[in-house]
Amino acid sequence: MSKKFVYLFSEGNGTMRELLGGKGANLAEMTRLGMPVPMGFTITTEACTDYYDSGKKISDEIQKEIFQYLEKLESITGKEFGNPENPLLLSVRSGARASMPGMMDTILNLGLNDEVVEGLGKLTNNRRFALDAYRRFIQMFSDVVMGIPKSLFDEALENLKTVRGIEYDHEMSPADLESLVASYKSIYKKEIGEDFPADPSKQLLNAVKAVFSSWMNTRAVYYRRMNDIPSSWGTAVNVQSMVFGNMGNDCGTGVAFTRNPSTGENKLYGEFLMNAQGEDVVAGIRTPQSIDELAKVIPEAYNQIIQIAKTLEKHNQDMQDLEFTIEKGKLYMLQTRNGKRTAQAAIKIAVDMVNQGLCTKEEALLKVEPSQLDSLLHPQFEPTALAAATAITKGLPASPGAAAGRVYFNAEDAREAATKRNEPVILVRVETSPEDIEGMAISKGILTARGGMTSHAAVVARGMGRCCVSGCHDLRVDMDNKIAYFNNRTVKEGDFISIDGSTGKVYLEKLPTIEATLSGDFATFMQWADEIRTLSVRTNADNPKDARQARLFGAEGIGLCRTEHMFFEAKRILAMRQMILAKSKTDRVIALNKLLPMQQEDFEGIFREMDGLPVTIRFLDPPLHEFVPHGDDEIAVTAYEMGMSFTELKNAVKHLEEANPMLGHRGCRLAISYPEIAQMQTKAVIQAAITVRHEGKNVVPEIMIPLVCDSAELKFVKNIVDTTAKQVMEQYGEEIEYKVGAMVEIPRAALMIDVISKYADFFSFGTNDLTQTTYGLSRDDAGQILDDYYKNRIFESDPTAKLDQAGVGKLIKMACGWAKEAKPHVKLGVCGEHGGDPASIQFFQTAGMQYVSCSPFRVPIARLAAAQAKIRVDAAEK
Amino acid sequence: MSKKFVYLFSEGNGTMRELLGGKGANLAEMTRLGMPVPMGFTITTEACTDYYDSGKKISDEIQKEIFQYLEKLESITGKEFGNPENPLLLSVRSGARASMPGMMDTILNLGLNDEVVEGLGKLTNNRRFALDAYRRFIQMFSDVVMGIPKSLFDEALENLKTVRGIEYDHEMSPADLESLVASYKSIYKKEIGEDFPADPSKQLLNAVKAVFSSWMNTRAVYYRRMNDIPSSWGTAVNVQSMVFGNMGNDCGTGVAFTRNPSTGENKLYGEFLMNAQGEDVVAGIRTPQSIDELAKVIPEAYNQIIQIAKTLEKHNQDMQDLEFTIEKGKLYMLQTRNGKRTAQAAIKIAVDMVNQGLCTKEEALLKVEPSQLDSLLHPQFEPTALAAATAITKGLPASPGAAAGRVYFNAEDAREAATKRNEPVILVRVETSPEDIEGMAISKGILTARGGMTSHAAVVARGMGRCCVSGCHDLRVDMDNKIAYFNNRTVKEGDFISIDGSTGKVYLEKLPTIEATLSGDFATFMQWADEIRTLSVRTNADNPKDARQARLFGAEGIGLCRTEHMFFEAKRILAMRQMILAKSKTDRVIALNKLLPMQQEDFEGIFREMDGLPVTIRFLDPPLHEFVPHGDDEIAVTAYEMGMSFTELKNAVKHLEEANPMLGHRGCRLAISYPEIAQMQTKAVIQAAITVRHEGKNVVPEIMIPLVCDSAELKFVKNIVDTTAKQVMEQYGEEIEYKVGAMVEIPRAALMIDVISKYADFFSFGTNDLTQTTYGLSRDDAGQILDDYYKNRIFESDPTAKLDQAGVGKLIKMACGWAKEAKPHVKLGVCGEHGGDPASIQFFQTAGMQYVSCSPFRVPIARLAAAQAKIRVDAAEK
Repeated sequence: MSKKFVYLFSEGNGTMRELLGGKGANLAEMTRLGMPVPMGFTITTEACTDYYDSGKKISDEIQKEIFQYLEKLESITGKEFGNPENPLLLSVRSGARASMPGMMDTILNLGLNDEVVEGLGKLTNNRRFALDAYRRFIQMFSDVVMGIPKSLFDEALENLKTVRGIEYDHEMSPADLESLVASYKSIYKKEIGEDFPADPSKQLLNAVKAVFSSWMNTRAVYYRRMNDIPSSWGTAVNVQSMVFGNMGNDCGTGVAFTRNPSTGENKLYGEFLMNAQGEDVVAGIRTPQSIDELAKVIPEAYNQIIQIAKTLEKHNQDMQDLEFTIEKGKLYMLQTRNGKRTAQAAIKIAVDMVNQGLCTKEEALLKVEPSQLDSLLHPQFEPTALAAATAITKGLPASPGAAAGRVYFNAEDAREAATKRNEPVILVRVETSPEDIEGMAISKGILTARGGMTSHAAVVARGMGRCCVSGCHDLRVDMDNKIAYFNNRTVKEGDFISIDGSTGKVYLEKLPTIEATLSGDFATFMQWADEIRTLSVRTNADNPKDARQARLFGAEGIGLCRTEHMFFEAKRILAMRQMILAKSKTDRVIALNKLLPMQQEDFEGIFREMDGLPVTIRFLDPPLHEFVPHGDDEIAVTAYEMGMSFTELKNAVKHLEEANPMLGHRGCRLAISYPEIAQMQTKAVIQAAITVRHEGKNVVPEIMIPLVCDSAELKFVKNIVDTTAKQVMEQYGEEIEYKVGAMVEIPRAALMIDVISKYADFFSFGTNDLTQTTYGLSRDDAGQILDDYYKNRIFESDPTAKLDQAGVGKLIKMACGWAKEAKPHVKLGVCGEHGGDPASIQFFQTAGMQYVSCSPFRVPIARLAAAQAKIRVDAAEK
Repeated sequence: MSKKFVYLFSEGNGTMRELLGGKGANLAEMTRLGMPVPMGFTITTEACTDYYDSGKKISDEIQKEIFQYLEKLESITGKEFGNPENPLLLSVRSGARASMPGMMDTILNLGLNDEVVEGLGKLTNNRRFALDAYRRFIQMFSDVVMGIPKSLFDEALENLKTVRGIEYDHEMSPADLESLVASYKSIYKKEIGEDFPADPSKQLLNAVKAVFSSWMNTRAVYYRRMNDIPSSWGTAVNVQSMVFGNMGNDCGTGVAFTRNPSTGENKLYGEFLMNAQGEDVVAGIRTPQSIDELAKVIPEAYNQIIQIAKTLEKHNQDMQDLEFTIEKGKLYMLQTRNGKRTAQAAIKIAVDMVNQGLCTKEEALLKVEPSQLDSLLHPQFEPTALAAATAITKGLPASPGAAAGRVYFNAEDAREAATKRNEPVILVRVETSPEDIEGMAISKGILTARGGMTSHAAVVARGMGRCCVSGCHDLRVDMDNKIAYFNNRTVKEGDFISIDGSTGKVYLEKLPTIEATLSGDFATFMQWADEIRTLSVRTNADNPKDARQARLFGAEGIGLCRTEHMFFEAKRILAMRQMILAKSKTDRVIALNKLLPMQQEDFEGIFREMDGLPVTIRFLDPPLHEFVPHGDDEIAVTAYEMGMSFTELKNAVKHLEEANPMLGHRGCRLAISYPEIAQMQTKAVIQAAITVRHEGKNVVPEIMIPLVCDSAELKFVKNIVDTTAKQVMEQYGEEIEYKVGAMVEIPRAALMIDVISKYADFFSFGTNDLTQTTYGLSRDDAGQILDDYYKNRIFESDPTAKLDQAGVGKLIKMACGWAKEAKPHVKLGVCGEHGGDPASIQFFQTAGMQYVSCSPFRVPIARLAAAQAKIRVDAAEK
């Protein structure tokens, strides 16, 4: 039997996400539950895959099936596609397996042409409505399907309004709309070189194609890369009979959340617009009314929505995001999905739902996206400064958190400022659109003049955990001159402003920020996570402040303390340089002796903070040339400080240069060439441990040797450590228990881990470097390469940012197995960027690691991700 | 039961090499065969291991066992150690599992002291002999055991001779010797601060310790690194009762080979000295007589040697190298071992022995060390030039082959000239010693003033396959002023000379050399190798000349044709630079179109030479900055040539710089950024194939994509290749069959090989780069690191030179398995340095590769190594 590519809504159900996409499966499920869904059918994700496999063609077989289902739809609705007497009009919408808001494209009112529009006018007795639908359709089709710039249509509309001296769209007469349709059609002809397609079947096929194609547009690819969605999934297409919220004052359209998506409050929340089509709400062009108002306007519909919301939330065991349209007083449900929410709301909803008996703790834990917690941990404004500050204006509190930054008016300028000049950026826009996503991602906050709480800017910012103020009516933006006007105050590009996404307030100054305080629900929720997870979470911290912060966030130790960061401080760098440029072992030891007390002090501070928890100290790692001056000016100054001649120092610096520093003299290779460095570091660790233990604290030092690739290396350095530690302990007459382990950050360490384990108490996988050597790709040089790779769709994400489970992961998994076989109780962990990445954490759980280590602010994220990993792995094993 | 650490010669046998070392096992075997071997015992290699494991101490247990066996030896010989009345004297010699000539140390006459020497004098009625033995012992013990410079003793001897006005050692009277002994003892006391040890037991233990310690001396470590001998093997110690070749004129000592080690002629060959100790022959201080002469001097002993030689050769199925001593007319055998021989001799002996029915073809193939073949393939002097040239003198033809080079007088200067200035070097010495080994290894040839065919210089040079002329009596060397005198002609450091190791002739000019012609035996022998081996041998060749040479040497195709080498030629580099610096795709295509005909011509030449054999062409690989000028001067010239400003070009060059070029924009990454490069190269391959096929030749192109790490990369580039090839073939109306494959040279390619195999007809392992990324160690930066690693005994060899089977090999083996599982008929091969290394070839055989590829001159070596690998793998499987 040949494959089925099309399903009526009444043929599917909510479990068929993979085949029907999220939207299609939910429409089918609502239909199954007897809810008022306009009938339609879904073209499957497999049809999308087939489209790409066939060189971007919809096969004859699939075309045939689509038109068979169109006939079924005609017979169900009693209307006929393209028949002016009783026309069936369609909406065509994408729907991937995972929700991708604003990424994919929608076409409404499809099936209209010059004849059908007149028929529709007669049938509805509303020619104005029919013409308005037609001009909207032409514009949407031209933009979305044919790629004609939307601005051309906006200009034509504005021209008309200026000529006719009118302000609002709804003031246009049928004659105005007729002339607008004519203008739109001539724009189409001019741009495409053909007449606008009058054949509804052609319209439909092109629209379906456009949805399929949009799966590979730049924005969609970028969103998937950010959200880890494989491009092989493809998108489904939902073809649904149209209902109209803009047929008159007994019509309307809106969106609703079953709970408040900002706070989590358990109360229906949403917005609607009377006499409008759905796009008007989402695009934020008119500011909508609160859903509560609907109870007054059309109470039957409101009550029905309340009922449906309850049913769907209970049925789907999660907060729902609904879209509805009311056509002549009758309610239609156009969509339901699990609603996006702020981290704060997500946690409150999860805790509430467990308390209400709506789900288990495990289910609740899976409802919160770990990376979202980020926003809870981000700074708020410092209260005193905030009290003293006066807000210039107030918009909608669209996504919580506070940010201060320099104003930029488009995504490109914002990116330039953030990436090249490392500036904090506030992106200021009239309204945002999918083109802005990258710019939003690199900004600290987003401020828009238009759009509600469900506008593009608000939805996307909440998803990203970025603070956002939307619908700021006092704001006018002059894009051309890059100036913002707040009433009579002006803000130029690069000026500082501050915005508070939790209050909606805007300040024309740079307000200081402080750390977040976490709610009681947060504590409850994280406690559930801690009860369930088996993976320990440590932090990467190089100083007492970070250590304290991480411990506050629940870190169970330090997994990576980089000792070299301590040497870059102004006071220390000179001694470090003397050590590096020493001409003899004696000179080197003299310089190291200067560094010893500083290093010891660092360790003491960290040991104090981590009382009772393990602290993994990585010995000196980077190539020595990183510590020496490079420019002639800096060399001259340093030479003077060090009592060397310019030439002498310049030659010494030159001598340290390497062809490939990443593959050069660094890591344990330094300790092998200069054992006295490892001796000094061991002394500092053991002496610090003795000092801090005298203060009544419990110290658990773990010494980690970097860049090991052979057991003989670890044996050699461990011998230095053990010998030195013994000497120090004998000198002080004290015993300190410590461990010695190795980083696994080059492929050979993973391959030889069974042999190396003879000398290692633990292994920590340095997945950043391991990825670079496994790929033969240096992060420093990856820029142009990756750009070309994304462009050619060879890579979908940066392997140095997101763990490559297929390749690097294969090596890690094998290594974990070999290590445990050789030494069953050896401790295995991960440090580096990937240690705080939820998807990677799940992988590390299955690989059998005991801990991950990440930056302090990622610790709560890792704790939740570890709990989710445990739940998912357990579920998979059942 | 505790381990046995000591064996009498009568307790062991020839199969116990691992435990007793080669020398010990052979002495035991000769004893077992009833041959006249002075009795002794062997302290095992396990005792050596125990010595190092115990922190360089001989355990009490082992000491006790040694003295137990000493007692047994006393009772067998009827002599007593340290008893002046009837003293047992001992030789103490090292003996590792593999022969390490000149590397380890020997002590003779051990057991002498002031009392015993007088007893020995009385007993032998030859006080002069006894004193001579004593002074030799003191010197040897001081030098070998205590590390006192030998020169101090030589000076004392020379002083005495000057004072006494005598020329030769044997002219010294007993009184002279007595005073010499006194001087030697005072040197000892001055250097060590203690009296020379009179206690024979202490002498013995210190000597054993010295042998164990010598296992780790720099020369031994270097020799092992060169010959792939693991340091974990350890050495055994042979303690043997002394016999004396220097008791008078019915005494003598010598060495003999059962066949001629230079030519392979089946006739006893050797040298002896009457009234001498063994060291006199080996050190080459006196020039010895031919073994044939012995028939006249002591015919009984001569006949007995002939008989023993035959027996041992048949018994050991190989040519033997014998040491013997005649004491008062009675023959003693001191050693037998498989003899070192020239490649020419090795092949003749192997072929002869098969013809004589002494061994099978397989056994014969195992008798020749593949790397030795090198010397057969090296240049000889051009005959016309040779005929016109006049030799200035003639020495002994110690190791065949011819060489011209600049004269240097010590190993350091030689190394400096060879490695830093890339000069061809002839090392000229009075005689060589183990300190010279490294200098010999980097020289083209060795010339010595003293020493016979079995001198250190001769033996080592033959082992290395270096040409060598020894015992050149007309040569006088002034080491201080670095001048050589050939009669009245002088040669200064850096002057050219030419030497012929097959004739012994020396020329004071630079003679041109030509390729070797290979003997009929060679052809027979290599044919046997080809019959047996299953691993195919290809060559790395970038031009028709190399391809032709390799085919002559038996290459079965080209495994690696590096296309970039072609672009460095003066005529082409400009077009290449235009391509690299092109500002647009159009400019780049214009430059590539200039390169196309040149590249096509290259391929045509190679295809012609390789008619009928596969040619693997690797697409452009190195980072582009390798092709652009770097110094300011060169940039200025190039800028002028290219019509650019200096600043513009300098900036462009700067832009190409990378932090880690090894991990940067190279390999297939170039083809992905600039598909037009791969298009041009494909065009060149296919058009060349069409052209050459028209000439009636059979062309088998294989296109190899470098630096692949992901299947999507190969898919992308293969698509370019296939599309372009199709266009060219359609244009010419011809079909060319070609393959597309990937290099496996970064770890991820190995890890993902099963997935990549979907798009690959073949894989070629680039083990050089694979080693660098697997180790995270760049060959360019490894210098100081490796020096420190050798010094600290962390690495024993350079992993970028010798395949690391444990780590990189593990990855390769797994990858081969995965590749075959995913695609059973995929072709697997190796290109790069390791492809010509015999030890690595054995590994590649077991890993399941189908071919190796190496430089043309390594092809015969690889063929033999492949045959040996097959024989050994088959044997191991039985």
